[in-house]
Amino acid sequence: MTTTLPLKTPAIDNTHLSPLSKLDIPSRLLLGPGPSNADPTVLAAMDRQPIGHLDSAYLSLMDEVQELLRYAWQTDNRLTLPVSGTGSAAMEATIANAIEPGDKILIGLNGYFGHRLVDMASRYGADISTISRSWGEVFTLAELRSAMETHRPQVLALVHAETSTGARQPLEGVGDLCREFDCLLLLDTVTSLGGVPVFLDKWGVDLAYSCSQKGLSCPPGSSPFTMSDRALDKLNNRQSKVANWYLDMSLLSKYWGQSRTYHHTAPVNMTYAIREALRLLAEEGLAARWARHQETAEYLWDGLEDMGLSCHVERDYRLPTLTTVRVPANVNAKAVTTKLIEDHNLELGGGLGDLAGQVWRVGLMGYNAQKENVDTFLSALKQVLAQV
Amino acid sequence: MTTTLPLKTPAIDNTHLSPLSKLDIPSRLLLGPGPSNADPTVLAAMDRQPIGHLDSAYLSLMDEVQELLRYAWQTDNRLTLPVSGTGSAAMEATIANAIEPGDKILIGLNGYFGHRLVDMASRYGADISTISRSWGEVFTLAELRSAMETHRPQVLALVHAETSTGARQPLEGVGDLCREFDCLLLLDTVTSLGGVPVFLDKWGVDLAYSCSQKGLSCPPGSSPFTMSDRALDKLNNRQSKVANWYLDMSLLSKYWGQSRTYHHTAPVNMTYAIREALRLLAEEGLAARWARHQETAEYLWDGLEDMGLSCHVERDYRLPTLTTVRVPANVNAKAVTTKLIEDHNLELGGGLGDLAGQVWRVGLMGYNAQKENVDTFLSALKQVLAQV
Repeated sequence: MTTTLPLKTPAIDNTHLSPLSKLDIPSRLLLGPGPSNADPTVLAAMDRQPIGHLDSAYLSLMDEVQELLRYAWQTDNRLTLPVSGTGSAAMEATIANAIEPGDKILIGLNGYFGHRLVDMASRYGADISTISRSWGEVFTLAELRSAMETHRPQVLALVHAETSTGARQPLEGVGDLCREFDCLLLLDTVTSLGGVPVFLDKWGVDLAYSCSQKGLSCPPGSSPFTMSDRALDKLNNRQSKVANWYLDMSLLSKYWGQSRTYHHTAPVNMTYAIREALRLLAEEGLAARWARHQETAEYLWDGLEDMGLSCHVERDYRLPTLTTVRVPANVNAKAVTTKLIEDHNLELGGGLGDLAGQVWRVGLMGYNAQKENVDTFLSALKQVLAQV
Repeated sequence: MTTTLPLKTPAIDNTHLSPLSKLDIPSRLLLGPGPSNADPTVLAAMDRQPIGHLDSAYLSLMDEVQELLRYAWQTDNRLTLPVSGTGSAAMEATIANAIEPGDKILIGLNGYFGHRLVDMASRYGADISTISRSWGEVFTLAELRSAMETHRPQVLALVHAETSTGARQPLEGVGDLCREFDCLLLLDTVTSLGGVPVFLDKWGVDLAYSCSQKGLSCPPGSSPFTMSDRALDKLNNRQSKVANWYLDMSLLSKYWGQSRTYHHTAPVNMTYAIREALRLLAEEGLAARWARHQETAEYLWDGLEDMGLSCHVERDYRLPTLTTVRVPANVNAKAVTTKLIEDHNLELGGGLGDLAGQVWRVGLMGYNAQKENVDTFLSALKQVLAQV
C-alpha cells in the first residue's frame, strides 16, 4: 500500500499504519509496588496546554516544586529538583554525579534495588564493595561501622525503603558515621518520600532520589533528586565531566538556579502534576500524611493476621507504604495476582529476586493509603484464595 | 515552626512549607522552537488514572506506540520505542548505545545540536572528529564523502532538522556513503518527525531520535528512539556494558520485546499521550500532515516577505517546522519576544549560539501548523515592531 504525495519524496509505506480506536484504559485499583493511583486533582492538572520551559510562569512553578520537595524531604539542600524521567533516572543521577572512575562505593544489599545500585555504579567505573543481609532484613549501625572500617568508601549507598522487600532501614547514626569516615551518604527514598518519615538533614543524607508515583500520588515521569553541599563540593571538584549529559547536575543546576540556562526541554505537564501533588502534600501536612499511612498499614496487617496470613518483615522494620505478605503453602502466587486483576481490577505485586513466588507486595501509598482500599483488597483476596 | 507528630520521630521543620494557590497556567500560543501546543485530544488522554507498567492493557499500548512510530519514521526497525524522558534523553540514548570508548564518530556541526552531540559523545569516550558549516547551511554529499575518507568513522552523526537554525539537511545518498565506509548513520529528527518528510529506511539511517512536543502535538516527556539491525549488531557485540543504565537498549529491548522483563516504571500517562498523538497522525496520514506543514510555512514565508523581513536559511533547505527570521537592523530581538509574550501571550524563540540576537525562531509544528496561527503571529509582530 502506498500513498501519492504532493511533495517530491519517495512513496509512503503504509505497512505500519495500523488504525487505532480511541484510547480505552481499564479502571484499576493499583495496590502493587507502584504506580499507585494518582490523586484526581493531580490528574486534572495534567490536562492543560504546555507552556515554554523558559516562560516566567514555568520558572515560578519550578521554584514552587523545589521548595516543597525540600519540605517533603526535610532538607535545606539548595540543589533539590525533579529529574525529567522516572525514579530510575533520579537513582542514576545520584550515582552519575557522586561517582568518578575509581571512586570507592559501599552498597547495602538486602533487596533488588541494592543490586541495581551495584549495576549502575559499575557503569560509572566505581570501585564497588557490598554488605549483605537477607531480603527483608536491615543493617545495624554496628554492621555498617564494621564495613566502613574495612572498605573506607567515599560513598555509602543504602535503601531506606526497599520496594522489593518492604523493609525500612533505620538511619539514626548513619550520617554521623559517614562524616567520621569522610564519606557521602546516598539514600533511596523511592517508597518512603511522602508516606514514611524521612529527615534527610537530621540523618545527614548527602544524596537522595525518589519517584512521583508512590507517596506523592502523581503519575510517574518526574522524579525528586537532592544533593547536599558536601556532595556538591565533590561534584565541583571532579577531574572529569559527569559521564551522563542528561543527568549532569553541573549543567542542570544552572537551569534550576539563578541563570536559567537552557539545558533540555522540561516535561512541562509532569511538572504541573508534581506541583499539584506537592501542594496537596503541603495542605495535608507531613505529620497527618505519615500518620495516615501508618494507620492504614496497621489496619492491613491486622486484617491479614485475622485471615491467617503473615508478613515477611519484622514489625519494627516494616514499611507502611509497602507490605510483603507471605504466600501460603500450596498457593500459586501468580494465579492469585492474575485473578485479582482479571476479576477484581485490582493490581497486586509479585515477589522479585530472592522473594519471587514467596510473597505478594501490597502498596498503600499516597492517595491509595485509605482503609476502604484495605477492605476492598482483603475481601477480594478472600474470594480469590477460596477459588485458586 | 514545628508540628507535633503522632510517631516517634524528630520534629517536622516547616521552613519550606510554602502554601500554594491552585495551579494557574497562562494560555499561550507556542510558536517558538518547542514545546508547541498539544492537540486537545492528546491532553484529554493524560487525564486518566495510571495503570501498571506490566498490565496487559499497558503492554498493548506499548505495541501500538511502537508500530505507529515505525510508520511515522518510515522504518521497519524492530527496536523502535519511546524513551522515558524528553528529546535530549533519546538523543543521549543513540550515543550511549552506539559508542564504546575509543569508537570514532564524525559529527556534522552547523548548529547548536551538533555541538551537543559532541559534548555527549565525549562523555562516552568517543574519538570525535567534526565537519563544520556556518549555522543555517547544510552539508553536500561531496563534503561528507571527503570527511569520511579523512576520518574513517564508525558512526556519522548528522542533524536532519537543526532546531537552532531552521535548516534541513538533505539525506539522499548519505546512507549509501555510510555503508561504503562500514559506518553507522545517526540522525537527529527532533524537529522533523511528524512535520517534515522522513524516510529512515530509504535513507539508510541506523539510529534516530526525536521528541513528542513538536511535530507530534504532544507534551514533552516521551521521546522516540529507533535503531536498525546494523546498529543492534554493534550493540550486541560490545566489549563493555552501555555506560548508561536508564538508556541501555540491551535491557530496554527486553521490556519492549517478547520477555517483558521489568526495567523501570514507565511514564504511563505520557504513553497515553503519545499513543493518542500517533493515532491522530495515522488518521491524518503522513502525506497530508507533511503537506499541511509545508503549506503553512510557505504562507508564513510569504507574509514575512510582504513585511520586508527575510529568512536566514536558503529556501531549498528551509524547514517548514521551524523558520529563522532575521532581526532587522536597529531592532532589539529580546524586546520583541518579551512584548509578544507579555502583550499577546505568544511565545517566539530567540537565536541560539552563533545566531544569538540575530534571528527569531518561529515554530509551526504539529497542531500549531495552521494558517490562522500565521495570521495571529504576523499581526502581533506588526504591532510589536511598531512599538519597540
